[in-house]
Amino acid sequence: MLTLSRLAQLIGAELVGDPEAVVTRAQSFESAAAGDVTFAANAAYLTRLNNSSATAIIVKSAEPGMRSNLLIAPSPKLAFARALQILHTKPYRPSGVSADLLLGEGAVLGEDSSIHPRVTVGSNARIGDRVTLHSGVVIGERCSIGDDTVVHANVAIYDDCQIGKRVIVHSGTVIGSDGFGFVADNDGRQVKVLQLGRVVVEDDCEIGANCAIDRGGFGDTVLKRGVKLDNLIQVGHNTEIGEDTVVAALTGFSGGTRIGRQCTIAGQVGTNQHIQIGDGATITARSGVTKSVPAKAVMGGTIPAQDYNSWRRCQVLYSRLPQLAERLRRLERLIQDRGDGSEK
Amino acid sequence: MLTLSRLAQLIGAELVGDPEAVVTRAQSFESAAAGDVTFAANAAYLTRLNNSSATAIIVKSAEPGMRSNLLIAPSPKLAFARALQILHTKPYRPSGVSADLLLGEGAVLGEDSSIHPRVTVGSNARIGDRVTLHSGVVIGERCSIGDDTVVHANVAIYDDCQIGKRVIVHSGTVIGSDGFGFVADNDGRQVKVLQLGRVVVEDDCEIGANCAIDRGGFGDTVLKRGVKLDNLIQVGHNTEIGEDTVVAALTGFSGGTRIGRQCTIAGQVGTNQHIQIGDGATITARSGVTKSVPAKAVMGGTIPAQDYNSWRRCQVLYSRLPQLAERLRRLERLIQDRGDGSEK
Amino acid sequence: MLTLSRLAQLIGAELVGDPEAVVTRAQSFESAAAGDVTFAANAAYLTRLNNSSATAIIVKSAEPGMRSNLLIAPSPKLAFARALQILHTKPYRPSGVSADLLLGEGAVLGEDSSIHPRVTVGSNARIGDRVTLHSGVVIGERCSIGDDTVVHANVAIYDDCQIGKRVIVHSGTVIGSDGFGFVADNDGRQVKVLQLGRVVVEDDCEIGANCAIDRGGFGDTVLKRGVKLDNLIQVGHNTEIGEDTVVAALTGFSGGTRIGRQCTIAGQVGTNQHIQIGDGATITARSGVTKSVPAKAVMGGTIPAQDYNSWRRCQVLYSRLPQLAERLRRLERLIQDRGDGSEK
Repeated sequence: MLTLSRLAQLIGAELVGDPEAVVTRAQSFESAAAGDVTFAANAAYLTRLNNSSATAIIVKSAEPGMRSNLLIAPSPKLAFARALQILHTKPYRPSGVSADLLLGEGAVLGEDSSIHPRVTVGSNARIGDRVTLHSGVVIGERCSIGDDTVVHANVAIYDDCQIGKRVIVHSGTVIGSDGFGFVADNDGRQVKVLQLGRVVVEDDCEIGANCAIDRGGFGDTVLKRGVKLDNLIQVGHNTEIGEDTVVAALTGFSGGTRIGRQCTIAGQVGTNQHIQIGDGATITARSGVTKSVPAKAVMGGTIPAQDYNSWRRCQVLYSRLPQLAERLRRLERLIQDRGDGSEK
Repeated sequence: MLTLSRLAQLIGAELVGDPEAVVTRAQSFESAAAGDVTFAANAAYLTRLNNSSATAIIVKSAEPGMRSNLLIAPSPKLAFARALQILHTKPYRPSGVSADLLLGEGAVLGEDSSIHPRVTVGSNARIGDRVTLHSGVVIGERCSIGDDTVVHANVAIYDDCQIGKRVIVHSGTVIGSDGFGFVADNDGRQVKVLQLGRVVVEDDCEIGANCAIDRGGFGDTVLKRGVKLDNLIQVGHNTEIGEDTVVAALTGFSGGTRIGRQCTIAGQVGTNQHIQIGDGATITARSGVTKSVPAKAVMGGTIPAQDYNSWRRCQVLYSRLPQLAERLRRLERLIQDRGDGSEK
Repeated sequence: MLTLSRLAQLIGAELVGDPEAVVTRAQSFESAAAGDVTFAANAAYLTRLNNSSATAIIVKSAEPGMRSNLLIAPSPKLAFARALQILHTKPYRPSGVSADLLLGEGAVLGEDSSIHPRVTVGSNARIGDRVTLHSGVVIGERCSIGDDTVVHANVAIYDDCQIGKRVIVHSGTVIGSDGFGFVADNDGRQVKVLQLGRVVVEDDCEIGANCAIDRGGFGDTVLKRGVKLDNLIQVGHNTEIGEDTVVAALTGFSGGTRIGRQCTIAGQVGTNQHIQIGDGATITARSGVTKSVPAKAVMGGTIPAQDYNSWRRCQVLYSRLPQLAERLRRLERLIQDRGDGSEK
């Protein structure tokens, strides 16, 4: 429960309206009622602004005729995300350590933990303060888990992996499984290349459900600070993902991919081995990136991914191939007719 | 063990043959022997009909010369699916509640359950009658699980999710993980958009192995009655899938996708955010659907998905691009030659 | 710790250098130091050979001026994989059987096992000698697990599945979930086709993290000896994968796919139902294989996959469609001008 003047201060917005009005919830535009703060995601909402019974609406700029309490912020979505956190984050309350915790020899547990029942922690692992481990979590030997990290139910973390602070790992995700390394022998049998590296997940990462993040062959697979992965993502051995990069579901990174910081990788993307994707690049959905990509590039298409705008032009022409073929056929006939004519 | 007259009645087929003959199993055409009922999936099987030693064969229509006992049904595959259920469904026998069940405060368990060892149920959850929870299942607080539902090993269901009656959830699936919502701040750091909604899985759904179904941001992610999901499927936040729609493996629905009823979505399909797929639409394998699709549409291709038949024409021409380019080159040369000639 | 003469013998290499020099580790070229053996993966490394402080380097052939101890092997990568195994495989030491093992009635446990805490084994299952089952593993009734197999944390294996010897199953993988079989009834409701078959995983297979391998409808889904699957792979019911075939991440095989031996299937590939892929075929990344493919074929592209080289030609022309269209337009104008001219 906050006054608008206080909320405005906390989310970095300018208030136009009643500073003493009080909000208790952040809500979507459609559902917002008295007592709620909401936001106008785009221009379409602005026309419906005065129909909302929300107590306050976050907008990009105040316009004449707007009768609501307005919170003006350069990025309404960002300001709203902050309002959501301020109004809805449940304060952390340690639930304590379940009596059935299996803590390996030499493992260390921090303070104020929330260790749910049926958690297994390997020997010499170090678990930080205020860590939440949900039921069914299995943590290998010599792992470390940073302060304030939450690991959801049935996550498996193999030996020797390092997870930073304030990380969230969603259910079913596997961290540290062997990279896919095999060499065929003379009989065509696959000989395993042992995978001796680790996985390092730095602070403030979030990893979705049922991802698979392989350990390095030599050296580490690394998610740098602030990486956000959606669900069902494959991260091959020795891949490194740069700070604040976001990756959507069902994307797969081959071994040794090096992705820059603040990249946007859409869903069902794939990358070739050992390529680099520069800082700030965008890869649109379902692209197969076969070659290295410079910083800030926007790539799209199928396989191989192309410059996004070039691809769009190609794709439009692809969808017109029947017409192009017909025009070609007509030209051929015309030329043949004329040719026949001139040669007669 | 059933007489053919009784079986015919139960599966809605017309019997041509011995009403007192007895079957004990349903079997594939290749393996069917005396005592078995099988079916002829297509015309290829009809020629081999008299070679089968099956006691009865389900066919679409009786033809002269067929010597087997025939069960005539408009959809042999459907009739056979029913025969399979009738002859092979194991009657439900409650295995009881494992002594090690961890049942949160205020949680309620129905009657005649089969709660295997090592199950965790959160506080205030409600579990219906005749529910089977396999080992390693973790159910969050305030969840509800309907009567006769089966949840396989190592499934994780987050707080506040609702699962209907007669639902089957296969192993490793995650229901209710956070949707993928982030907004970059001025420094490019990703600020989490809290995900306050739920997942609602209605009656008679089946969800394959290792799927990830995110909770809504606001409001719910919904699988309507009778939805069938294959394995490794991503369902983004606030997606709604209509009644009786089937979805094949490795498909991903972005946030806010709205899929109609009785749609067929093939494998490795992807959808753009906030689009709608109309009732009865078919999306063929590996299509990236970028725009809303009307009811009964058939879409295919890569990205963007197109009308299926248009795409097939384009794709045939794509595979002939070398010939098209060669024809263009020939024309250019011809015209240049003639041009040169006429200007000489 | 091995002398080079001994190592050369064990990995089948010829030594050029000091037979008494000693190595203790196998390391990547970049990190190799004194006491290490490494390998030159390709020609680029050869120029840096004399800069390495590795005690020995595996190469394809000795060249004048190479001053390191050389181990000459026809496939340096294969020889190195063997060196890795020789120097880094931890000898198996049984950790014993956790006191909390839940072993179903009639289940049999082999000798020298490593059964971690919180493992559940169904009735009448047979677990071989020296098997490692990590925490959270759930094995169904009547399963069999061969000698020396390792099943990682939180794997679920359904009833009646058979896993061979020396198999590795990574965390989160599901073996034996129901195949995706449904038939619509007259009201469009999906009727389940019961899945009565099994999964058979033969000796020496390795299955990555979070895969889903469905049981057969009738008969079995089979991974033949030596198959290697990466992470997040879908294997539909009754699919059979031939010996020594390798499959990269996020690939999906529809029901009844029959893949030959020693095939290479890259990432994010999909296959149509009931097709066959011949022995030794290669399917490049992100191809949708819609038709059967002969032995040794190389297929690529999007959907439908084509002969790889044909596809590459098509794809190059696809990326030049704007130029092709422009040339066509120019020709049309030219012809129209001439036509107009000649008809005036």
